Amino acid sequence: MKGVYLVTDRPLCLGRALTSIVAEAVRAGIACVQLREKTASTREFLDQALALKPILASAGIPLIINDRVDIALAADADGVHLGQTDMPYDTARRMLGPDAIIGLSVETWEDVSAAQDLDVDYLGVSPIFVTPTKTDTGSPWGLDGLAEIRAYSRHALVAIGGLNKDNAADIIRAGGDAVAVVSAICSADDPFTAARNLVHCVESALDSPADKETHS
Amino acid sequence: MKGVYLVTDRPLCLGRALTSIVAEAVRAGIACVQLREKTASTREFLDQALALKPILASAGIPLIINDRVDIALAADADGVHLGQTDMPYDTARRMLGPDAIIGLSVETWEDVSAAQDLDVDYLGVSPIFVTPTKTDTGSPWGLDGLAEIRAYSRHALVAIGGLNKDNAADIIRAGGDAVAVVSAICSADDPFTAARNLVHCVESALDSPADKETHS
Repeated sequence: MKGVYLVTDRPLCLGRALTSIVAEAVRAGIACVQLREKTASTREFLDQALALKPILASAGIPLIINDRVDIALAADADGVHLGQTDMPYDTARRMLGPDAIIGLSVETWEDVSAAQDLDVDYLGVSPIFVTPTKTDTGSPWGLDGLAEIRAYSRHALVAIGGLNKDNAADIIRAGGDAVAVVSAICSADDPFTAARNLVHCVESALDSPADKETHS
Repeated sequence: MKGVYLVTDRPLCLGRALTSIVAEAVRAGIACVQLREKTASTREFLDQALALKPILASAGIPLIINDRVDIALAADADGVHLGQTDMPYDTARRMLGPDAIIGLSVETWEDVSAAQDLDVDYLGVSPIFVTPTKTDTGSPWGLDGLAEIRAYSRHALVAIGGLNKDNAADIIRAGGDAVAVVSAICSADDPFTAARNLVHCVESALDSPADKETHS
């Protein structure tokens, strides 16, 4: 899990179809999409997943479903992203099998420590900075917190919360493997260009180990 | 699916634990419990299901989960109840297997007609009467509507919406197989006595085919 990780939010798409935003982001080279639906019915959530699947499958990009293991199974998605009040990791793993991608949000050191014993595929380090997109989160980790988790954790780290092209390279230099964004792509005037700029920032930083060394 | 079918609603339990309400209803002889959670997190929903399961399993009473196939799978429940905006029946059946109990709400004749081709285990005929418990439903079927569905449908019929001990026998006489209640048990001063009275009304009516003949 390295690169730009798009978390969807339909209300933030400013009236544009989610499929078109995702298609633009895929064309720009993002690495992963998490479908997050906060108020949709099960049917609507599933229909959104089924609509995104061919767009992502043809590009070889994983489709991750927020919270709902049933939607992931029904849409044959690549995995789920679990928050701390979602399905327990072990239960989700048993239902989805060994090949599914399962990510877990960590908002406290207790979460990070507990995750060390779990075979999750990545930790969602949340939030890095304060953000208007998600208001039910813990206090921000900041770049220093991210670097401390990097030094401790055995897992890949997907950073989220207040991230954009201006701080994406800092995230990678602090030890993040992927930069997750919501509004930086969903609400961009030009989602393709926004995604391409983010991908460029992240990939440049990932390709600069010396630079990374200096700043870590 | 014959008898009294309890649909849970924690806010309607008036501060009492759902497990204690359900245990009383089980002791009174109800036939089925549907766990319905409108605002719970996935973790909380699952925890409720796991708490109810031993109470029901020891009495041989099925635990049905509202909407969420993942909760049903994770808790090894007996089935799911699907609304028209939940998982499509065929998808849920594929995920849960041939032995699961799958019920489907019908709110229009179009729903009833479409369900005729599905191997659902029962139809939830909703609502029979107007009810303050659920406000997002279609217009009420009434006893006449229930009788018309009985004449047409090949499925067992679980009636819901505004039902209580005063109209439970009418439901059976109109062709219902089970009477589903929410507040009539969850909000009762004495859930055991309320459930026992309902069970008595429903079982008496089910045992009186001559009476049923006369009134149908």
